[in-house]
Amino acid sequence: MGIPAIIPFKPVNPKTRLSCVLDQPEREQFAETMLADVVNAVEEAGCDPLILSTHPYNFDRVPVREDPTGLNEALNVILAEERGPLLIIMADLPLATGGAVERMISTREDSAMVPGRGGGTNAIYLSRGDRFRVDYYGASFLKHRQIARERGLSVEVVDSFRLHTDVDEKEDLVELLIHGTGLSRGFLEGLGFSLSIDKGRVGVIREKKA
Amino acid sequence: MGIPAIIPFKPVNPKTRLSCVLDQPEREQFAETMLADVVNAVEEAGCDPLILSTHPYNFDRVPVREDPTGLNEALNVILAEERGPLLIIMADLPLATGGAVERMISTREDSAMVPGRGGGTNAIYLSRGDRFRVDYYGASFLKHRQIARERGLSVEVVDSFRLHTDVDEKEDLVELLIHGTGLSRGFLEGLGFSLSIDKGRVGVIREKKA
Repeated sequence: MGIPAIIPFKPVNPKTRLSCVLDQPEREQFAETMLADVVNAVEEAGCDPLILSTHPYNFDRVPVREDPTGLNEALNVILAEERGPLLIIMADLPLATGGAVERMISTREDSAMVPGRGGGTNAIYLSRGDRFRVDYYGASFLKHRQIARERGLSVEVVDSFRLHTDVDEKEDLVELLIHGTGLSRGFLEGLGFSLSIDKGRVGVIREKKA
Repeated sequence: MGIPAIIPFKPVNPKTRLSCVLDQPEREQFAETMLADVVNAVEEAGCDPLILSTHPYNFDRVPVREDPTGLNEALNVILAEERGPLLIIMADLPLATGGAVERMISTREDSAMVPGRGGGTNAIYLSRGDRFRVDYYGASFLKHRQIARERGLSVEVVDSFRLHTDVDEKEDLVELLIHGTGLSRGFLEGLGFSLSIDKGRVGVIREKKA
């Protein structure tokens, strides 16, 4: 048995900030492909993935727990029950690699965290789940550091851009097209996305369908 | 003698994309403060910093080489002369730490690179300078990987968000206010900058002067 890796996931109408370049069915497929990359990364690191879904959902061989109550509520129920180690990792990290996850779960501290861009928290490893509670949204990274401090838990901030890079907006697709090594990059390329360079700035363009 | 760490620097009217929140003298001071953080990080890793400046410039005890010809031209002259190891690291990486630089210079590959956001190259370590040439601007990270390939040099992509986070725009100041541990964060705070949270999105605000 590996360490449980909880991956919160929203299968219905996800990633709305990508609506400018992807329609709803494409966003749902893209979210699922990014999830598959995250599942592969945590499995490569020896963890046992568990998808925590807002809606009824099936994903290949990975167990799914459905909980529509909200991210914090759903995760805090799981944490309260877990006296062993546990990883929480977001589903929109298609640059995640087994090596980056291993750096988290091999920390010598009580916890390890990777911040997202803009103050979020992309991944949290806890040596004991029930000693912590999560508080996502807003500057959650600062809140999570504070919660750890209040509970006397040491924190290692793991310095990884692969886990730091969450994909929310069109500009984030640049990172995926440059650094992606998993399924999500191929998915985008299959839809006709490629890098564009205009006046030295790198962006993405999508080829029109024939 | 440590490994030389070349830090390209533009002391005059730098960081123009921050003009919306900082006037020219403030941008010049801010650029200098970020440079100081990078100098401290490379020194902590045992490197010998050398500032490569576009204009006449003095910086404390660190040697300065002035070359107004352009980033690629100036660096390629230095590289051609260097048969030993060498690090090139940008001056706008105020989250840089000694530990992150150490990860680069302790690579077992012929080179180590850290990409910037949007396809740039924030740092390059070369086990032998004269086997490489740089080609900055645009998607330079892809170009640098290609140059290494053409010259038969292996590349480790070092997975560090601290070296990945270059500060160019107002949104990047969020990262500095959250993760900064050096001088640049204090500099911003001294000017009245702080985090703001609006509808769950984290940004920065600047207090008006009294």
